[in-house]
Amino acid sequence: MSTFRSETDSMGAIDVAADRYWGAQTQRSIINFPIGVARFRWQRPMIRALGILKRAAAEANRELGELPGDVAALIVQAADEVIAGKLDAHFPLVVFQTGSGTQSNMNANEVIGNRAIELAGGVMGSKQPVHPNDHVNRGQSSNDTFPTAMHIAVVEQVHARLLPAVRDLRDTLAHKAEEYERIVKTGRTHLQDATPITLGQEIGAWVAQINFGIEAIKAALPGVLQLAIGGTAVGTGLNAHPQFGRLAAQKIAAITGQPFADATNKFFALAAHDALVQTSAALRTLAGGLMKMANDVRWLASGPRCGIGELNIPENEPGSSIMPGKVNPTQCEALTMVCVQVFGNDAAVAFAGTQGNFQLNVYKPVMVHNVLESIELLADACAAFNDHCALGIEPNLPRINENLARNLMLVTALNRHIGYDKAAAIAKKAHKEGLTLKQAALALGALSEADYERWIVPLDMTHPSA
Amino acid sequence: MSTFRSETDSMGAIDVAADRYWGAQTQRSIINFPIGVARFRWQRPMIRALGILKRAAAEANRELGELPGDVAALIVQAADEVIAGKLDAHFPLVVFQTGSGTQSNMNANEVIGNRAIELAGGVMGSKQPVHPNDHVNRGQSSNDTFPTAMHIAVVEQVHARLLPAVRDLRDTLAHKAEEYERIVKTGRTHLQDATPITLGQEIGAWVAQINFGIEAIKAALPGVLQLAIGGTAVGTGLNAHPQFGRLAAQKIAAITGQPFADATNKFFALAAHDALVQTSAALRTLAGGLMKMANDVRWLASGPRCGIGELNIPENEPGSSIMPGKVNPTQCEALTMVCVQVFGNDAAVAFAGTQGNFQLNVYKPVMVHNVLESIELLADACAAFNDHCALGIEPNLPRINENLARNLMLVTALNRHIGYDKAAAIAKKAHKEGLTLKQAALALGALSEADYERWIVPLDMTHPSA
Amino acid sequence: MSTFRSETDSMGAIDVAADRYWGAQTQRSIINFPIGVARFRWQRPMIRALGILKRAAAEANRELGELPGDVAALIVQAADEVIAGKLDAHFPLVVFQTGSGTQSNMNANEVIGNRAIELAGGVMGSKQPVHPNDHVNRGQSSNDTFPTAMHIAVVEQVHARLLPAVRDLRDTLAHKAEEYERIVKTGRTHLQDATPITLGQEIGAWVAQINFGIEAIKAALPGVLQLAIGGTAVGTGLNAHPQFGRLAAQKIAAITGQPFADATNKFFALAAHDALVQTSAALRTLAGGLMKMANDVRWLASGPRCGIGELNIPENEPGSSIMPGKVNPTQCEALTMVCVQVFGNDAAVAFAGTQGNFQLNVYKPVMVHNVLESIELLADACAAFNDHCALGIEPNLPRINENLARNLMLVTALNRHIGYDKAAAIAKKAHKEGLTLKQAALALGALSEADYERWIVPLDMTHPSA
Amino acid sequence: MSTFRSETDSMGAIDVAADRYWGAQTQRSIINFPIGVARFRWQRPMIRALGILKRAAAEANRELGELPGDVAALIVQAADEVIAGKLDAHFPLVVFQTGSGTQSNMNANEVIGNRAIELAGGVMGSKQPVHPNDHVNRGQSSNDTFPTAMHIAVVEQVHARLLPAVRDLRDTLAHKAEEYERIVKTGRTHLQDATPITLGQEIGAWVAQINFGIEAIKAALPGVLQLAIGGTAVGTGLNAHPQFGRLAAQKIAAITGQPFADATNKFFALAAHDALVQTSAALRTLAGGLMKMANDVRWLASGPRCGIGELNIPENEPGSSIMPGKVNPTQCEALTMVCVQVFGNDAAVAFAGTQGNFQLNVYKPVMVHNVLESIELLADACAAFNDHCALGIEPNLPRINENLARNLMLVTALNRHIGYDKAAAIAKKAHKEGLTLKQAALALGALSEADYERWIVPLDMTHPSA
Repeated sequence: MSTFRSETDSMGAIDVAADRYWGAQTQRSIINFPIGVARFRWQRPMIRALGILKRAAAEANRELGELPGDVAALIVQAADEVIAGKLDAHFPLVVFQTGSGTQSNMNANEVIGNRAIELAGGVMGSKQPVHPNDHVNRGQSSNDTFPTAMHIAVVEQVHARLLPAVRDLRDTLAHKAEEYERIVKTGRTHLQDATPITLGQEIGAWVAQINFGIEAIKAALPGVLQLAIGGTAVGTGLNAHPQFGRLAAQKIAAITGQPFADATNKFFALAAHDALVQTSAALRTLAGGLMKMANDVRWLASGPRCGIGELNIPENEPGSSIMPGKVNPTQCEALTMVCVQVFGNDAAVAFAGTQGNFQLNVYKPVMVHNVLESIELLADACAAFNDHCALGIEPNLPRINENLARNLMLVTALNRHIGYDKAAAIAKKAHKEGLTLKQAALALGALSEADYERWIVPLDMTHPSA
Repeated sequence: MSTFRSETDSMGAIDVAADRYWGAQTQRSIINFPIGVARFRWQRPMIRALGILKRAAAEANRELGELPGDVAALIVQAADEVIAGKLDAHFPLVVFQTGSGTQSNMNANEVIGNRAIELAGGVMGSKQPVHPNDHVNRGQSSNDTFPTAMHIAVVEQVHARLLPAVRDLRDTLAHKAEEYERIVKTGRTHLQDATPITLGQEIGAWVAQINFGIEAIKAALPGVLQLAIGGTAVGTGLNAHPQFGRLAAQKIAAITGQPFADATNKFFALAAHDALVQTSAALRTLAGGLMKMANDVRWLASGPRCGIGELNIPENEPGSSIMPGKVNPTQCEALTMVCVQVFGNDAAVAFAGTQGNFQLNVYKPVMVHNVLESIELLADACAAFNDHCALGIEPNLPRINENLARNLMLVTALNRHIGYDKAAAIAKKAHKEGLTLKQAALALGALSEADYERWIVPLDMTHPSA
Repeated sequence: MSTFRSETDSMGAIDVAADRYWGAQTQRSIINFPIGVARFRWQRPMIRALGILKRAAAEANRELGELPGDVAALIVQAADEVIAGKLDAHFPLVVFQTGSGTQSNMNANEVIGNRAIELAGGVMGSKQPVHPNDHVNRGQSSNDTFPTAMHIAVVEQVHARLLPAVRDLRDTLAHKAEEYERIVKTGRTHLQDATPITLGQEIGAWVAQINFGIEAIKAALPGVLQLAIGGTAVGTGLNAHPQFGRLAAQKIAAITGQPFADATNKFFALAAHDALVQTSAALRTLAGGLMKMANDVRWLASGPRCGIGELNIPENEPGSSIMPGKVNPTQCEALTMVCVQVFGNDAAVAFAGTQGNFQLNVYKPVMVHNVLESIELLADACAAFNDHCALGIEPNLPRINENLARNLMLVTALNRHIGYDKAAAIAKKAHKEGLTLKQAALALGALSEADYERWIVPLDMTHPSA
Repeated sequence: MSTFRSETDSMGAIDVAADRYWGAQTQRSIINFPIGVARFRWQRPMIRALGILKRAAAEANRELGELPGDVAALIVQAADEVIAGKLDAHFPLVVFQTGSGTQSNMNANEVIGNRAIELAGGVMGSKQPVHPNDHVNRGQSSNDTFPTAMHIAVVEQVHARLLPAVRDLRDTLAHKAEEYERIVKTGRTHLQDATPITLGQEIGAWVAQINFGIEAIKAALPGVLQLAIGGTAVGTGLNAHPQFGRLAAQKIAAITGQPFADATNKFFALAAHDALVQTSAALRTLAGGLMKMANDVRWLASGPRCGIGELNIPENEPGSSIMPGKVNPTQCEALTMVCVQVFGNDAAVAFAGTQGNFQLNVYKPVMVHNVLESIELLADACAAFNDHCALGIEPNLPRINENLARNLMLVTALNRHIGYDKAAAIAKKAHKEGLTLKQAALALGALSEADYERWIVPLDMTHPSA
């Protein structure tokens, strides 16, 4: 009738809610680390990764004769439920705990152990027939399992969430670049009017930058595909079967479909997480590119009357209850706020990455937390920006043409026909007197109207090699 | 019978779940900004602050004749429910939205409006007798209300959560410093043995550093006590009663018990949030001090056999299933991870703070989010560290004495008695031959055993002025 | 005849160029730390501060009977030369050395010692009659002298260089704000047209923000006015006269005219440098404000034809050889690059500030280096920006008026006369059909031309309380 | 006889010192940007890169018929002097100038132009027969030349300075790892005693981490090998021969021996510098790894008596005048200070990288400055650390063995022989009573002395797979 059961670890017994699978060490962590509880519990990616890891470990140990087949089968079955998300409610721990992630590793061991016991018809908490340490954690240490789970989670999230969302946005923009490849407009350098470009070229630069970010992230993944598993407590692999690391990594690769392998230097894999630092930096690079793009979009859409106003973007919500026609670039704002957050997260990751000592870096949880948060936010923000802004970007042709016609820098095209000095005189007169270039040119008698029309062809200035 | 009702804004009608108080603009934001939904919804501090703000605004408007008394009373009643946390479930929006926080301001207007309508027996969504814009948002703009709520939330959280937790930890350490003021031990500079200090002095330096952090935070608050309210859309206060800002700030001060006032320059109050940047920096300074302290604790507790081992800290959970006697400094690890997170959050805040343009900074939500997160995490981590570590810190006297006795730097006390050269010879001999200082001194015949005992009194070296 | 002399320290003899005053430890540092030699030698501020410190120490020791009067007088005379900059060529060491700054402290001791010997007619390197350790460094340790010099340098540079330059810029802008207080223009939020403000209000927000930065810096100084002097090696003051710290700080205050005092907790003063972290953060806040201002300036001056174009800024250099009329906002660019550098420097300072251990933080040189660099760059950039940009900022009235006339948000003023709905209809018609507000209003027959002229008075919209 | 000559640009005439090759625009920049003059002048790497660029451009233009052969030959000859460093004194400009680097591009044009004129026997300032714009800058804009020079400088410095120095250090450590591969010692996790490793394994983890950093830097280079040249003002290549970019890049590749090519998207190459952001991030990753290594070294060398003391490091300078035997880990301190600086520099680079607008990022100078500074400092610090510390690292075998013998974690090896429970009882008794493991084991009668000696073989615990 009791709503609690007793669970034990090496420090003794402790009560756990009867309907929870976790054990004593998880319960102690709940008590000892009430830090940011509302927002810093582990989410799906890490829980799933721990499930994958534990399944792979059980399979490897079975194959190596380190676990009986029936015990391994029970672990695999319970781990599959963890992988599928059925047991998320049994992972109550937060990021800010032991720096090795020990308690989350034990959380996984305890939940899988008790669920396996339940599946076998045993008594939860009895550690019979499945023991959280001797069986679920067999040949493992938190020091190698937690960073392994970190890598699994990051690789999976990059592939499942981030890259698809970024590519969708990239594709939308690439399509726009193609669509607008012959719309000529004012180029701008130093925020000042410059020689013309096409809108396609302008958008194409965003596409190139996003592609650069995608490649940067992909370039960081090989390091993340190396797993600490097999290193156990300090990197030597003590208490693990010599083939365990290699085989467990193969199992992880099979489950995830990603080319994971065990790390070539296990000592390094425990003591530092430079692959995550590099991944975080690549996320930062992507964020920097997205920020530049979003800033360009909102400046180009600024106005409607007193800004640049060359782009129209979708109106998704009322901008102001008293200002009709005001379309705030809210998707740009949400995206750039995400980018700023990614910069902050990256600062935390890189700082944490320096603080390892000897055989262990004990900032593991905060590192993976920030990398995963950056991935999630960038993915979500790219999807929202794509759906609610990028797809609806359209040129404001009257404004583009008006600006282009006013742009004194078109004068550059006259250099080869009438010489730099006369061209300069035209531009200066236009600037000083507020004339159009054509007005100034004709007023100076520098060329005929027909010549002007023939020589000042902005589109030709955008593709000089054509 | 329907589970939805229709809500309208200037863009038209939209369905809202019938049991939710929010209106059309909140609903649109849910659709347009599905970014980090699981973890980035606004928490208690901001929701409460919006409630305080809306109550104060209604009271001020009533007093200035801008709102009828019955409408104001309804708003106050609904706002009180928001303040009390009864309507948290009706604030579904996330940080990454419009950069002015417009949609969260509207969320508050809509929820308070509909709840007030309900209290008045009206029809939700009818905007009768309480209109979200005309009444709840009267004399206000998101551009001044949201930063006002930001400031309210930060000041309240600093006082309600952060300072109490930090002071508790500080007091614990101050008590320890006093308790151990006569325990002499090895000082360390460059990680190398140095002249002695007392454990009280060592801990007292942590106390001084934490006090410095507390003072830094308090020094940042005056800027946060200045409120944007009254500036409306661009800082001019257009559409607000000329006395509204001043009076609303007074009401906020009355509700919160904090000396809020309206900002002397409203344009600056909308266009930049340097007071939050300074607050974030002060949180970073505190975090830096806590990190140094926590690092000292774990190094001093390192071992048990092969480290420094001069402090014992509580054993809260099993360190390792195979290593009895291993006490991992897990509270230090959680706290230092929090400190690293605060550094990251601060980087985001400071970056965002630079990105305002003209009359508005549109990184408001991400700025206040990070400041509040840092406050919460530091408060929680200080409390956990205090309860589960600091209170239990004890000197390992045998080790302290053993180290002190081995410390060659005690030789410094002989300088004035036998001269620097002879003292140096003793130290060098001891170092080279692995002797104690005393052994070396006697072996060199530099002084008698009685003199050695009389002159080498480590405690005297720690208080030379006494 | 030799161009070298032999200098000695506890490690033995080493050759030093005969015309250099430095001694053995400086020479060893040159050899051991060839890091960034071309750019990272200590500059005037730190050399001067070391001179001030050594003079003050000699005066204090003389007064306390710790130094003979003649020796003290020689030290004071040599230190005065260091203060005056006569011996800068004898300070060859770089930032990246021992983390306590030991070698720069010894550099000062050696140079002052040898120069004092020379003044006394002695033999350089003989340590007679003035010994670098026993006399010049008397009662001191690098651990307390170097941070003392750090604080002296920072306080002096803030007062001598930074604040005057920032205040000059602030005053220029304040004058502009006053001058242009009745020029009405378009306000902008979210980069979108908003209700009007005056140019004076817009510039006044910059003034308020710069003032905030100045106050932030001043608020950080009290911590920097506390000096480590008197703490010696670990904070206990071992080997210093009990009154030495207090008295030396008084002497430093007398020499500099700044209210320095010795730190209340010397252990904290050696083990952490949070006062510099806070100073760096305040410099970052100022930089953030300057960045926002400079960005506003260049955006408002963008164009000349296809941007906002509401400000004219001085043309200081050719913008482009082929684009006449192109005025690049180069002072804005230099200033914002400085701001970005200050952000980077601050990141280094704050990181370094966390890394102390036990009784010493050994990142002292890199911390003070970055703070001083930020001070210097901000001072120089503010001066250049003031002289070459701010003083010449002028409104482009035709553009301002053109934009204002086009700004649909002026419609807000009609709300109280014809109601929100009719006003909205006017704005929407204008926006949709590209009309002026007035055209749309008259076309709709919503009001007479006379009423329009009477009611739409932008200046009134900027000071609703007047 | 005058010491000045008159130089002109489009703004008119200005005096330049007669013995300087620079022209009017350089002179104006000196006047307009007196910012950080003592330390922020461009150094060899950028000056050389500008020389290489200008030579390559002249060669390409000659080959394309865009420059007469004699003019091109003069430019090449003068550019070669710039490359060789003969004209460094004629590059007086600083980092904080126009954000496109225009003035440094013009500085190169002017110096090469005037030197070429001098070589031709012409009159400096006459722009005859070599014109700085029409000839030296032919087919170029600052917007594409300056980022091209940035990339040249970074690639050259990475290869010439950084990688050799880092590899030397890596090789030293790899040699040590091999040399000490059978020295068994205490492993440490959470700063606590853990199961044994070999010193070779511990050092090998540093080698692996440094290798990771090297690979990260190499992975960033392909982006830097793409050059903006050929894009001219906005990316379209207006006014350049269509083959100019491709050919100039080939010339640059030929001169430098590095596989440079012109960028596939020139618009992106001007508008953003993500390749430098990625390079900076990789430098940060390397710095993080070096910091961890240097921290490990100084902690392992801490003591000599009251720390860990397992490593001996070279004594390079007196640690303290009163503490004989005190060896401060000064090379570790210099290196970690450099690492902190690299973190700060990286923060500046990444921030600057986000701030481009439209067709140009105008933070070019500050970005390349910080990347080059990080390269230089890391190279210098690695070399100093290698020469003055790493080469001299030696194990302190008595201490290592003493610690290992005391390490209770050796008990793990008994698990398989006497079971976990008995092993735990031994460890607990030893910990509680301060006994050695062997003493405790024998006292408990758990095994014979012979068995203990046979089973507790630490070396076997470090290579379980062997």
